Amino acid sequence: MINWNNLDTLNSFKELSNVSKVNLQEVMSGESGAERVKNYSVPMAAGLSYNYAAKEVNDDILAALKKLAEEAQLAEKFEALYNGEVINTGEKRLVLHQLTRGQLGDKVVADGVDKREFYVKEQNRIAEFAKKVHSGEIVNEKGEKFTTVVQIGIGGSDLGPRAMYLALENWAHRTGNFKMEAKFISNVDPDDASAVLNQIDAAHSIFILVSKSGTTLETLTNESFVVNALKNAGLDASKHMIAVTSETSPLAKSDNYLEAFFMDDFIGGRYSSTSGVGGAVLSLAFGPEVFAQFLDGAAEEDKLAAGKDLMTNPAMLDALIGVFERNVLGYESTAVLPYSQGLSRFPAHLQQLDMESNGKSVNRFGDPIDYVTGPVIFGEPGTNGQHSFYQLLHQGTDIIPLQFIGFRNSQLRNDVDIQGSTSQQKLCANVAAQIVAFACGKKDENLNKNFKGGRPSSIIIGDELDPKSLGALLSHFENKVMFQGFVWNINSFDQEGVQLGKVLAKKVLAHDTDGALAEYSKLLNI
Amino acid sequence: MINWNNLDTLNSFKELSNVSKVNLQEVMSGESGAERVKNYSVPMAAGLSYNYAAKEVNDDILAALKKLAEEAQLAEKFEALYNGEVINTGEKRLVLHQLTRGQLGDKVVADGVDKREFYVKEQNRIAEFAKKVHSGEIVNEKGEKFTTVVQIGIGGSDLGPRAMYLALENWAHRTGNFKMEAKFISNVDPDDASAVLNQIDAAHSIFILVSKSGTTLETLTNESFVVNALKNAGLDASKHMIAVTSETSPLAKSDNYLEAFFMDDFIGGRYSSTSGVGGAVLSLAFGPEVFAQFLDGAAEEDKLAAGKDLMTNPAMLDALIGVFERNVLGYESTAVLPYSQGLSRFPAHLQQLDMESNGKSVNRFGDPIDYVTGPVIFGEPGTNGQHSFYQLLHQGTDIIPLQFIGFRNSQLRNDVDIQGSTSQQKLCANVAAQIVAFACGKKDENLNKNFKGGRPSSIIIGDELDPKSLGALLSHFENKVMFQGFVWNINSFDQEGVQLGKVLAKKVLAHDTDGALAEYSKLLNI
Repeated sequence: MINWNNLDTLNSFKELSNVSKVNLQEVMSGESGAERVKNYSVPMAAGLSYNYAAKEVNDDILAALKKLAEEAQLAEKFEALYNGEVINTGEKRLVLHQLTRGQLGDKVVADGVDKREFYVKEQNRIAEFAKKVHSGEIVNEKGEKFTTVVQIGIGGSDLGPRAMYLALENWAHRTGNFKMEAKFISNVDPDDASAVLNQIDAAHSIFILVSKSGTTLETLTNESFVVNALKNAGLDASKHMIAVTSETSPLAKSDNYLEAFFMDDFIGGRYSSTSGVGGAVLSLAFGPEVFAQFLDGAAEEDKLAAGKDLMTNPAMLDALIGVFERNVLGYESTAVLPYSQGLSRFPAHLQQLDMESNGKSVNRFGDPIDYVTGPVIFGEPGTNGQHSFYQLLHQGTDIIPLQFIGFRNSQLRNDVDIQGSTSQQKLCANVAAQIVAFACGKKDENLNKNFKGGRPSSIIIGDELDPKSLGALLSHFENKVMFQGFVWNINSFDQEGVQLGKVLAKKVLAHDTDGALAEYSKLLNI
Repeated sequence: MINWNNLDTLNSFKELSNVSKVNLQEVMSGESGAERVKNYSVPMAAGLSYNYAAKEVNDDILAALKKLAEEAQLAEKFEALYNGEVINTGEKRLVLHQLTRGQLGDKVVADGVDKREFYVKEQNRIAEFAKKVHSGEIVNEKGEKFTTVVQIGIGGSDLGPRAMYLALENWAHRTGNFKMEAKFISNVDPDDASAVLNQIDAAHSIFILVSKSGTTLETLTNESFVVNALKNAGLDASKHMIAVTSETSPLAKSDNYLEAFFMDDFIGGRYSSTSGVGGAVLSLAFGPEVFAQFLDGAAEEDKLAAGKDLMTNPAMLDALIGVFERNVLGYESTAVLPYSQGLSRFPAHLQQLDMESNGKSVNRFGDPIDYVTGPVIFGEPGTNGQHSFYQLLHQGTDIIPLQFIGFRNSQLRNDVDIQGSTSQQKLCANVAAQIVAFACGKKDENLNKNFKGGRPSSIIIGDELDPKSLGALLSHFENKVMFQGFVWNINSFDQEGVQLGKVLAKKVLAHDTDGALAEYSKLLNI
């Protein structure tokens, strides 16, 4: 039997709060530091590993976290989720994004449909479609091949798929898997759509309209923008556009689209990169086999997340260390720092994934809670970040936990040897150096040059950023966020906080305003 | 006489800490809210205005801030800075970036050189060079025109110029000012340089190597990367490359470059967008006249920042409201939310500008301080952010102050009317709606749908994002950060916090490591 209790009612949390703190400088220095790096590591899927040596934990704290994981029934809650319980209680929905890449438990049937079969069927339909586009079986009005794919979507229909596309673009070029360039239109700012339309050859472009409900205002507006542009170019928009949507949406059976592919209400936008939302654009850009490898990586990582033992479950461990940092040590934000140019927009995806899931102030029953939840997430690729905001991370007045990501090899494998090392070696040397600099610091009598250290980080290390390791990485963070939501006893799968802005924006457009809203509208000439 | 005192020693700060707080929901509702929007606004340059109606201030708090500004001698300190005092005490340097765009006070002479004359001379040299590239007087080995410019630089040599380029790209296309496409190589990750080189036509590209010291490892590595690629393509690298550096750097008089343009130690990297660091790439991309307009906007805004009266000095007011939020109300981060796709990387620039300047724990004399300084800065363009992290901003457990930016017109002026409004109107309606939603919230018996409100924001509003308004915007934030540094009594112009990582990275590359650093190096195969 599962109990959904607030974090501050758990005995194990009280124990955790009273445990002796770790002096990170001390434990990360000398032989003790070396031992930690060797031991505080958990294997992940696709050859990745999660190393938490530079976190402010020790065996006592890990034991306390293990108790917390057990008392909070994290493994049981995940089991309930993947077996099809209504975990998204606010919206009364199942939470099934893991089912898009594998079956972790029981068959899940909803509305008489085996959901795993449904997701696989849609993936296969997308794969067929992509193959026909690549082979020239599906072509434009003039019988010419499509060369570009443009995703029209916002939020989860944009950030995740865009981050995944950028993460694999270089890899695909090197490995011969690059099929079509992808572009993305998301913002309702007309300059976004205009600029993308100026960059592409519309006659050879296929557009993917992504909206689960089929009613997202920004996305429908950008669709009209694109349809207009196609018409003005003398093209038949319905021959250039497909939809990814739910079966009940107005887009599902429309003559406006070459084809429609389906998802459902059990996959939240920010968790939809492994559904058709990511599947259509990634299969068109890189081929369905590449998308399948990406799903395999995610499925393997999901299996690790389903493990009962905290110490061999990287997502659960990462989640609990994060809760310790947030609720016991009091840190308010987390920086995500990938040492890989391919992951340039991965922090932006995690920003949505984490902050939209766990930026909540009420528990899953709608009662107020008395502890902090999701942190602010931000980040840029290293080494760029080093020359930007690392100053504050090293010497600022607040401590900000860091999530590094690094790979032993570059994606394009094109490199130069300068001053005795390659660029990739320099990149890796920098991430190793930063972890130790943050943890250990360095005393200097001139306090301006003094580094206090004691700034915690973890690193996920892999051989290469490829479809499989990317899938594993994505799954890791999805499951981490889920486990933290369980610990905080909140619903990580709704987003009621986005509603009020929508309602007020409609009022502005209808000129139904007074007070401050009317004045701001005037200032903005609406 | 100027006194450099810690914030917590100032009587006005103690008074500020004791002032009655504002109930933002209350004051922003009804007629009172309308009045605030009308009154709490300061004109900026280039037709912009800074509106702080939705900040947690009232006339009493503003009076207390005014006292603080006076006791902290902010106007006098800025005056000392632009008149050439050694404000960057740690590095014993003048701080002269404002002088790249105008002369606010006395003639500043250093090493026998009138610095304003020096900066203007370099701008003129860049302008001449850019004109010759555009006219075809300076061409590649085959006598063909250059079509692309590639900036090689990192940190301030990358983030600011890149953000400015992206901010004007669409505007330049519409107004016929677009001369050459610009690309940027920054990260030491070899995939960054490789990917850019794959995208461009090297034979028609001109590269700008930007490094003040001429010793930045990432930048020199990327230079070699590019030189190699040019050689492999049978091109003479020295015919394709210019340098922006200091006169004393090894790059200054080298045959490796077509030309070298100069800056000096008095312009910090993150403040260098208005120097040759931004000037070369922006003049080549859009023409020197456009760069000159950008400088004019910054110069006009600087003049406002030099004003003595807090209530008509937008940068000083913004700075002090930020200090109030940080040191009295206890908020730890600030989100920058431009409702303009052109400003997509402006938050990344502000991240460096703010966090590298004010992420400090010691005062300007090297003594520890007992109060918090620079906040975490993050952000993405609206409306994209709305579908991402706004959930946490609206309903998360921490309050995060917001800096909105909005324009009445789009840059490309290409728009569609859908459901009775244009995309630009929808964009503007959204920013107006968000401000009010954050400030006022909305009660709901279902706490999951309840919005507490009380979340403060300000907005900078303009007609259009063009060179002049962009210059004003840049100057505003530079001066805001400077004033906050003055209030916190820290040196906003050095960055000692980036040194330790560099030292340790060199050790890793020299295989001179032990303990944790040796183990991390092994894990990363270095």
